[in-house]
Amino acid sequence: MTLIFAAPSNDKGELETGSAFTPRFDEKGLVTAVVTDARDGELLMVAHMNAEALALTIETGIAHYYSRSRNSLWKKGESSGNVQTVQEIRTDCDQDAIWLKVTVAGHDATCHTGRRSCFYRTVGIENGQAAVTITDDRRHFDPAHIYAEK
Amino acid sequence: MTLIFAAPSNDKGELETGSAFTPRFDEKGLVTAVVTDARDGELLMVAHMNAEALALTIETGIAHYYSRSRNSLWKKGESSGNVQTVQEIRTDCDQDAIWLKVTVAGHDATCHTGRRSCFYRTVGIENGQAAVTITDDRRHFDPAHIYAEK
Repeated sequence: MTLIFAAPSNDKGELETGSAFTPRFDEKGLVTAVVTDARDGELLMVAHMNAEALALTIETGIAHYYSRSRNSLWKKGESSGNVQTVQEIRTDCDQDAIWLKVTVAGHDATCHTGRRSCFYRTVGIENGQAAVTITDDRRHFDPAHIYAEK
Repeated sequence: MTLIFAAPSNDKGELETGSAFTPRFDEKGLVTAVVTDARDGELLMVAHMNAEALALTIETGIAHYYSRSRNSLWKKGESSGNVQTVQEIRTDCDQDAIWLKVTVAGHDATCHTGRRSCFYRTVGIENGQAAVTITDDRRHFDPAHIYAEK
């Protein structure tokens, strides 16, 4: 049985202080999901969820997303083993974003590049140009090996 | 002088490991911005940035966003005084999300409801329905007072 989400109220107060969880999916039927490590709060990834992914995540306690590139439901870690067990789910004032605090199984890595977090680079200005610098280059797994069958 | 962002490479490797910051704005010209408190990593808000907001944020060190409801540039804290000073900017593997670690001035509050974080509610199931529970109800300011002139 899959959880059904009621339509969001037009009343801002109800959305902000009511007891119903009525996610505001965008015109593509998605909400933004921010994923942090329950262990230390590190930001691991930003992804998207449709109603099915969100319901499955709440019901099973295992993070599911919607892959915009593959246009399909995506159980995170299905290929890599880096499954995310959800410790807590939060939503924001206008209910269009979800925050998952997770525990990562497998290689303790979330990024498909093998790094712990997708946010492994800092942004700055170098010689007048917007530039990135890699601040975490430790690979927890070898993507060529893990995703070889794809 | 405003920073100009080059178009993202079609080469995935270049996007993931190159030295250029080439944000992948969506069809509306926006990237997702995740904002955490540099002090303790608490997730404060999720917002969006267009190229102007992103360039201003990098150049000035003060967080600027694009308000989708007002369709305009938004210097966070302009009304409330809760200006965000950026300590670090990161981007993710495919460069379509930005992570800002900030220090919040004023009331040390980010949510327009007066709470520290927009994510003041947990999500769960109650009597078979998706429900939210307020887990942080401390108000750092009175919205009716702060936004009275609006």
